[in-house]
Amino acid sequence: MKVSELGEFALIDLISDIVGKAKSPDVVLGVGDDAAVWRCERSLQIGTTDSLVQDVHFDLDVATWRDLGWKALAVNISDIAAMGGIPQYALVSLSLPLETEVECVTELCHGMVDIANEFSVDIVGGNITRSPVTVITLSVIGKAQAGSLLTRSAALAGDVVAVTGYLGQSAAGLRMLKSRLKFDDETTAYLKDAHLRPYPRVAQGQVLVEHGVKSAIDLSDGLLSDLAHIGEASGVAAKIWLDRLPVHHLVKSAFVDECPGMALSGGEDYELLFTARDSIIEGISRSLASPVTVIGEVVSGRPGAITLLDKDRRVVEWDGRGWDHFKE
Amino acid sequence: MKVSELGEFALIDLISDIVGKAKSPDVVLGVGDDAAVWRCERSLQIGTTDSLVQDVHFDLDVATWRDLGWKALAVNISDIAAMGGIPQYALVSLSLPLETEVECVTELCHGMVDIANEFSVDIVGGNITRSPVTVITLSVIGKAQAGSLLTRSAALAGDVVAVTGYLGQSAAGLRMLKSRLKFDDETTAYLKDAHLRPYPRVAQGQVLVEHGVKSAIDLSDGLLSDLAHIGEASGVAAKIWLDRLPVHHLVKSAFVDECPGMALSGGEDYELLFTARDSIIEGISRSLASPVTVIGEVVSGRPGAITLLDKDRRVVEWDGRGWDHFKE
Repeated sequence: MKVSELGEFALIDLISDIVGKAKSPDVVLGVGDDAAVWRCERSLQIGTTDSLVQDVHFDLDVATWRDLGWKALAVNISDIAAMGGIPQYALVSLSLPLETEVECVTELCHGMVDIANEFSVDIVGGNITRSPVTVITLSVIGKAQAGSLLTRSAALAGDVVAVTGYLGQSAAGLRMLKSRLKFDDETTAYLKDAHLRPYPRVAQGQVLVEHGVKSAIDLSDGLLSDLAHIGEASGVAAKIWLDRLPVHHLVKSAFVDECPGMALSGGEDYELLFTARDSIIEGISRSLASPVTVIGEVVSGRPGAITLLDKDRRVVEWDGRGWDHFKE
Repeated sequence: MKVSELGEFALIDLISDIVGKAKSPDVVLGVGDDAAVWRCERSLQIGTTDSLVQDVHFDLDVATWRDLGWKALAVNISDIAAMGGIPQYALVSLSLPLETEVECVTELCHGMVDIANEFSVDIVGGNITRSPVTVITLSVIGKAQAGSLLTRSAALAGDVVAVTGYLGQSAAGLRMLKSRLKFDDETTAYLKDAHLRPYPRVAQGQVLVEHGVKSAIDLSDGLLSDLAHIGEASGVAAKIWLDRLPVHHLVKSAFVDECPGMALSGGEDYELLFTARDSIIEGISRSLASPVTVIGEVVSGRPGAITLLDKDRRVVEWDGRGWDHFKE
């Protein structure tokens, strides 16, 4: 059945059933009124919004609707994580073509619920409307304690540049899916998950905060682009040591030649890129099961400028950059 | 210049300049980081999201980009008003075709700033992306005090049904604009404003709360559809007295035959529809400069059922309804 046959209000009822009742006792009113209402204690609240647009951010040939639901919420939770926050509430705005199958919408919602449950986020409201193309916009509200924010503007010359997890694997996954490349089962599953099911680094963000880190961003546009954002906001430059970029061995084997480029500018890894005094990195590493890798240093210089250095610390030229949503 | 020529990050800088620095001292971080951050005292927080989609919700032949900016924020502020809340913060997600003129985007932002300033709302963050069609999604966060919410589910049999302001004028304005109808200058200006610049009833919502009203909704889908939402959520039916529907004299003169239908199901008036004991209506009227009109009563019956009565209180049949976003 298509959403045009079901109608707006029956579709809202169906979505409400999947999204379910809010689990947090602080939610006063969830889906079903003019707006959602929750109790707020004295705290810092964090808010972010992000959209996934059909054929720009996703391709239904490679992603299922359930994957989309996961990813649409994941990219917003990642923004909260990158501020040192805990995600709490999500609002969903779905713009859907009339001919969309109802089953696609229910799968999308199940994907959102999958990740919402994983991160104890309550989907408290939203709206649906028809549209010529599918656009999925989520807004997520979270909380943080005073003095514990991670911002783009707090990097200092003398900091090291570090990153959680691995780089380039989302781009590698996208390449595999788009070009229908065949790898062994382990590699295929790993790359597919990396691209379609990014796992926001909320716990890692909390560990950074506990160890006194002040400066971070999540890797959405790509390492070079996102590090430039930190540099511009903090008024500093940075050096990247190319031989230190953490690339997973499955990605290295699958994309021997392309993996450095994927790591530098692939984007959508949703790891945390942060800067801190070298002395606290070891403590952070000990607190996390996933790897933390120092990949460079913050230096004085033109804000946002990035110098790439090879294993002998000679300058390397690189013509690629991260992803700009308005350049094709 | 087109947004594709300017690029994402220059466009974000341009938008940030227009949106400006947040005015509330509670905003810790506005536009420019991974997410926005604000201080929250112990309170109820209210969150809502709504999208305007090109050729579904707006037609650039009749609305300017500045109008769109106003309206996109207005419809969300209206949801906060309908909960008895005060709007505080807005997050903006813009999905734009590559060929969009930069000037259109700046006009859109100016329209948002116009209404944001009017209601002391800070635009604290957002994101932009390319898209085959323009989709403008806003999320607004507001606050309310415990015990002072207006919900859809609090209507009681024996309440009267009342409405702020006038009905049907947004539909009348749309008809005028789409069909290029000519009226005198006063009527033209009035109808144009009614459709393109709805003014959310935040102050009216506060007056309702102060007088002990518990049940309200904002008129977005149309009187019949929105009253049915209250009825369904509250488990009650309602009667509407057709001779009491408040229609502005300029709308009556311009659309003699069509104005009852516009008042019943036109939608987008963004007035507050509420129910309350008859005894408190007079006090509410005295507190407001704009009209408050009793248009019917809440009765026991099938939840959501609405009976229309003429001036002699005889039942009238009506085959129209409000607006369903998935029925054409």
